Amino acid sequence: MSLNTFGHLFRVTTWGESHGPALGATVDGVPPSVAIDEAAIQQWLDKRKPGQNKFTTQRREPDAVKILSGVFEGRTTGTSVQLMIENTDQRSKDYGDIAQKFRPGHADITYFQKYGLRDYRGGGRSSARETAARVAAGGLARAALAHLAPGIEVQGYMVQMGPKGIDRSRFDRAQIDQNPFWTPDAVAAEDWADYLDQLRKDGNSVGAIIEVVARGVPAGLGAPVYGKLDTDIAAAMMSINAVKAVEIGDGFASAALTGVENADEIRMGPDGPVYSSNHAGGILGGISTGQEIVCRFAVKPTSSILTPRKTITVTGEETEIVTKGRHDPCVGIRAVPVGEAMMACVILDHLLLHRGQVGDAGGVIG
Amino acid sequence: MSLNTFGHLFRVTTWGESHGPALGATVDGVPPSVAIDEAAIQQWLDKRKPGQNKFTTQRREPDAVKILSGVFEGRTTGTSVQLMIENTDQRSKDYGDIAQKFRPGHADITYFQKYGLRDYRGGGRSSARETAARVAAGGLARAALAHLAPGIEVQGYMVQMGPKGIDRSRFDRAQIDQNPFWTPDAVAAEDWADYLDQLRKDGNSVGAIIEVVARGVPAGLGAPVYGKLDTDIAAAMMSINAVKAVEIGDGFASAALTGVENADEIRMGPDGPVYSSNHAGGILGGISTGQEIVCRFAVKPTSSILTPRKTITVTGEETEIVTKGRHDPCVGIRAVPVGEAMMACVILDHLLLHRGQVGDAGGVIG
Amino acid sequence: MSLNTFGHLFRVTTWGESHGPALGATVDGVPPSVAIDEAAIQQWLDKRKPGQNKFTTQRREPDAVKILSGVFEGRTTGTSVQLMIENTDQRSKDYGDIAQKFRPGHADITYFQKYGLRDYRGGGRSSARETAARVAAGGLARAALAHLAPGIEVQGYMVQMGPKGIDRSRFDRAQIDQNPFWTPDAVAAEDWADYLDQLRKDGNSVGAIIEVVARGVPAGLGAPVYGKLDTDIAAAMMSINAVKAVEIGDGFASAALTGVENADEIRMGPDGPVYSSNHAGGILGGISTGQEIVCRFAVKPTSSILTPRKTITVTGEETEIVTKGRHDPCVGIRAVPVGEAMMACVILDHLLLHRGQVGDAGGVIG
Amino acid sequence: MSLNTFGHLFRVTTWGESHGPALGATVDGVPPSVAIDEAAIQQWLDKRKPGQNKFTTQRREPDAVKILSGVFEGRTTGTSVQLMIENTDQRSKDYGDIAQKFRPGHADITYFQKYGLRDYRGGGRSSARETAARVAAGGLARAALAHLAPGIEVQGYMVQMGPKGIDRSRFDRAQIDQNPFWTPDAVAAEDWADYLDQLRKDGNSVGAIIEVVARGVPAGLGAPVYGKLDTDIAAAMMSINAVKAVEIGDGFASAALTGVENADEIRMGPDGPVYSSNHAGGILGGISTGQEIVCRFAVKPTSSILTPRKTITVTGEETEIVTKGRHDPCVGIRAVPVGEAMMACVILDHLLLHRGQVGDAGGVIG
Repeated sequence: MSLNTFGHLFRVTTWGESHGPALGATVDGVPPSVAIDEAAIQQWLDKRKPGQNKFTTQRREPDAVKILSGVFEGRTTGTSVQLMIENTDQRSKDYGDIAQKFRPGHADITYFQKYGLRDYRGGGRSSARETAARVAAGGLARAALAHLAPGIEVQGYMVQMGPKGIDRSRFDRAQIDQNPFWTPDAVAAEDWADYLDQLRKDGNSVGAIIEVVARGVPAGLGAPVYGKLDTDIAAAMMSINAVKAVEIGDGFASAALTGVENADEIRMGPDGPVYSSNHAGGILGGISTGQEIVCRFAVKPTSSILTPRKTITVTGEETEIVTKGRHDPCVGIRAVPVGEAMMACVILDHLLLHRGQVGDAGGVIG
Repeated sequence: MSLNTFGHLFRVTTWGESHGPALGATVDGVPPSVAIDEAAIQQWLDKRKPGQNKFTTQRREPDAVKILSGVFEGRTTGTSVQLMIENTDQRSKDYGDIAQKFRPGHADITYFQKYGLRDYRGGGRSSARETAARVAAGGLARAALAHLAPGIEVQGYMVQMGPKGIDRSRFDRAQIDQNPFWTPDAVAAEDWADYLDQLRKDGNSVGAIIEVVARGVPAGLGAPVYGKLDTDIAAAMMSINAVKAVEIGDGFASAALTGVENADEIRMGPDGPVYSSNHAGGILGGISTGQEIVCRFAVKPTSSILTPRKTITVTGEETEIVTKGRHDPCVGIRAVPVGEAMMACVILDHLLLHRGQVGDAGGVIG
Repeated sequence: MSLNTFGHLFRVTTWGESHGPALGATVDGVPPSVAIDEAAIQQWLDKRKPGQNKFTTQRREPDAVKILSGVFEGRTTGTSVQLMIENTDQRSKDYGDIAQKFRPGHADITYFQKYGLRDYRGGGRSSARETAARVAAGGLARAALAHLAPGIEVQGYMVQMGPKGIDRSRFDRAQIDQNPFWTPDAVAAEDWADYLDQLRKDGNSVGAIIEVVARGVPAGLGAPVYGKLDTDIAAAMMSINAVKAVEIGDGFASAALTGVENADEIRMGPDGPVYSSNHAGGILGGISTGQEIVCRFAVKPTSSILTPRKTITVTGEETEIVTKGRHDPCVGIRAVPVGEAMMACVILDHLLLHRGQVGDAGGVIG
Repeated sequence: MSLNTFGHLFRVTTWGESHGPALGATVDGVPPSVAIDEAAIQQWLDKRKPGQNKFTTQRREPDAVKILSGVFEGRTTGTSVQLMIENTDQRSKDYGDIAQKFRPGHADITYFQKYGLRDYRGGGRSSARETAARVAAGGLARAALAHLAPGIEVQGYMVQMGPKGIDRSRFDRAQIDQNPFWTPDAVAAEDWADYLDQLRKDGNSVGAIIEVVARGVPAGLGAPVYGKLDTDIAAAMMSINAVKAVEIGDGFASAALTGVENADEIRMGPDGPVYSSNHAGGILGGISTGQEIVCRFAVKPTSSILTPRKTITVTGEETEIVTKGRHDPCVGIRAVPVGEAMMACVILDHLLLHRGQVGDAGGVIG
């Protein structure tokens, strides 16, 4: 991952600020002949976009994607694809009063310290608006996966909001698209709705934990030692705005396990190896096992809240700040489609990387 | 990070298997004129090496590093540096009986599935022996940091062994080098010693959580959006053998916080901004704030244990396996110097990257 | 250089086809605070654009560039910059009849063989239209150079058209902008005008040799062994459409020299080393000497001519083809601003790379 | 290409100085299961090594390669391969007197200006000794090519020494291995022998032009726009010590051709497209056509000659220098196996890159 590009072969470079004319993703290394059109990508942006339920930002953006290159007669040509989304609802005056102040918990101060200047409107490049470009790229990745490896599925869902986790005994995949939180626990969805309503009225916010799984991924993907699949997944999720933690499989809980408890034993099935458990989260030694790949990441609460916070100005004077205007009581909600998009991009990238380095010379057992 | 190389400008490529003649690190992009010799690197390897206390592997390797290029008259020349460590104590017969079986929880099976063959001796390339090369590279990185930015310190320590965490109220930095676990809690050190003794007799193993901090890092390091400092730190730690989770600052705990609780307020000090707290772990928007950078990672328990485990052979027959020979009851212990080495490499890399893209055009407040 | 991106730190990714809605350049690693606006880039596109004199393609494109990101209040922010140029004058029907045939000398056949499909309109991605994106990126690079290293100048000019070379004894830099060929020899300009007129009437075409120089480049730029300055310049020029050769300094003529004739002797001047000659073209061991960097590249004649050529169809039937419509009798003319743009990008990239790896630790003599 | 690494997927990082303990190549992205041993690589080093005929350097190095990793039971494992060559015959005292002076035409001065210091012994990292590491990597590449695409052949030969070119009408491939110059023209070989003898006695030197061809390369390799096959070949050759020019196919001569003369017409053969000529040198639009890939590069004369040359010292005093000791009257001779090695590496790299991005989705004609 480098500056504004991630990926080894399937490489995505995003561009664009919160209040600029547009944002987008330049996607390179796309396999040719993948059927794609704007609608196929738009569906994923519609899942993410602001203003679609009362729990996410009230900024209303159509997030309409345009494909400007790399596609001819409905199929990718193998050349670089430009996906552009024009900004329409910037509402600059919401931010004008913070040109001089740094919002605590945001990147305002660090962007200034790094670059010597910053586009203060809506956080500029540091805004989560950038994730729309990722979701667009993820839509293209999903189309390529459908073309190359139709059995692969990627799905994300929320497993914790603030301190409130789901009850895994109530886990029902069919519930995920049925509530505003993309959670598989219908009871939690009700509880969280009330909880967030209160937070919103208080002008406060809360964090969340999102789980993203990839199913049907063949064994053998990942490029040890530094291009490991879990390394790239961790980097992908950690790069999302407000993410402070990533884990694979049992994650931090593995630390407390003993070796006897932790190892996933192996048996043979009709189609190959079968594991008795999945503490590993589908990855061993940085390479996929063929099991479900399980990743969780934590999103911190947004720092744009209505409570006054102590801060300083660009010239070093002590002051306070209140973030007026639109804000998200739980930015974690919109991180669900973003996490899915990143997972899709990483899986596709590794399919191509494996194919490039190894071709079909991998080992088959039984 | 790519295949066997990590870093943007300060780039480390490691090579070598557990039972090959040697292993090492090819380090490129080293700043010139850094004073360095073999002893300066050896000290860090001595911290890591096996056989130095009864809690780590009984394999005895001197881990003697040789500098084969890139240094002239005691200073780096700016050209690629080759650091080589010869293996002396492989003891092949300890592993010969597992040429046909895949050890559960290890990368044996996935390496075979990916590449079609594997060096089964000691895990081949997937062995944690590879981390000796990282520690060597980390020693070179530390020397470069001392040359370019003498105020920067990197330190790692264990904060949890198995289910047993330290008591942070007893945190004493001076204790870290005084016990075999590099833990700042002397009481925990005693407790863990007994605990590990029992595990070792049982032929079992346990995981751990390591915390690595970097102090004195100037504000402004990190290359958003995909070369963020926390992204690179997460990737670096996740790439270490047996690591399943990484977090920055409050990490997963941030999810449960509210916006009011989470944001670090800002005041002015004599030398610049001062933060009231450090939930962010020293990084905002992927860029360092100047505060202590705090990272934690979880190491799962080793799967080389004396309890028989169910597995399969290369040809798909169901069988059992017991890992005889030398093994680590807690591989997490030796991950402490490895985590430090990775942190040093990432910090140096970002110092160079920032200097390259921005020079001294960053913003100064007050 | 990789797929659609070139550069180490100052990285340019171009996108867009001849007949797509738009084309552009995503430019990453731009130093912050560089003053830039659309007009500053437009001037370089105006130099390149088609339809501005009777000797270049009669396709009329305004080539109007828009800056969509990475610039705020007239200065670069250090984040990725999107430069977009919309296509307006595609005239698809000029190309429709070659959907089935491969034009000899063009990339039609190889794109089909590589990707399995191709955008046949105007050559799709293989069209020289892509070079407009390079020129836009070059405009941004020039602005950054003016900001960081104001003494650096880049200039390109034609030294040979077809078999007709200039007379270097008539070399007058002031002539370069005064004729349609950007040649420093006014007499040659007259001669070439007549020559090209005849070629155009015959429906034929001719090649050219362009020389690009960079003055005022400090000594020390270049990253041996594989990021050498001449390596990157050669790659940059060779990547331009229709280029078949690149040389530095005396180039191919060096082969015929003896060691006594070839080496540039060194004396001391008031500001540092002074060379008695410049056979090396300003680069030794892949690093700039501080002398004028001299590069020449050859452009082959366009294969879009009115003479019928033997070829085959997509299904393998033998046929003939005549390229109707607009074409360039000498594509080399528009390669002059493209070569300049590439040189500017490479020089800037190396300024940043050197600053990153070495800072100001380079050696000063005298 | 970056600093000390070249390649996209098949990546070679070289290390080592002329007078250091050793030099080598860390080769990453090697396809697994390639049969390889030290002898298979040694044969190529033996072709290159100094001291084997009276026309090349009298330094006697066995150039014995050791494989330190990445190979198990005679086959590559897919992990990083370390190839090391120990230096035995450095003879430091030959160079000791130039610690203070910069040899004109060499990189002594520019390395000092860039890095602030230099290993002056034998040119340090700038020495052509580095090319031994390339030849070792090339040996590994050839083995991989034999494994993946057995029809591919790479061959280099000298076509001009100083001002004396071969007569192509006497071109006989069988002669190439029969004379010390690897030239296909037996008459030229005789003439060059006398010519070089005289130059050697005069303490002078001369340049050369080498042609490298790759046969049997399938159509479709190359990654436009910036990873074009000819771009990567040009970069590879230009990176070789003392190279000042590269051309593909007709190269600089294309400039003088008209469109009618230049285009290679296409007919159908039993196995696919057949071209009537090969002005393009086997590459169109940066992608291989399936024809012979033809590349030529020029090597300047070595600047280590016995005639006194004017130069300066490290402290800026004017002086003279005579290069005593061993030297090459024509360094171009040993560049032949080096050019072959680079071509093999680039072709392999592109085979893997194409396979990664496109797989077998390329287009077949007829």
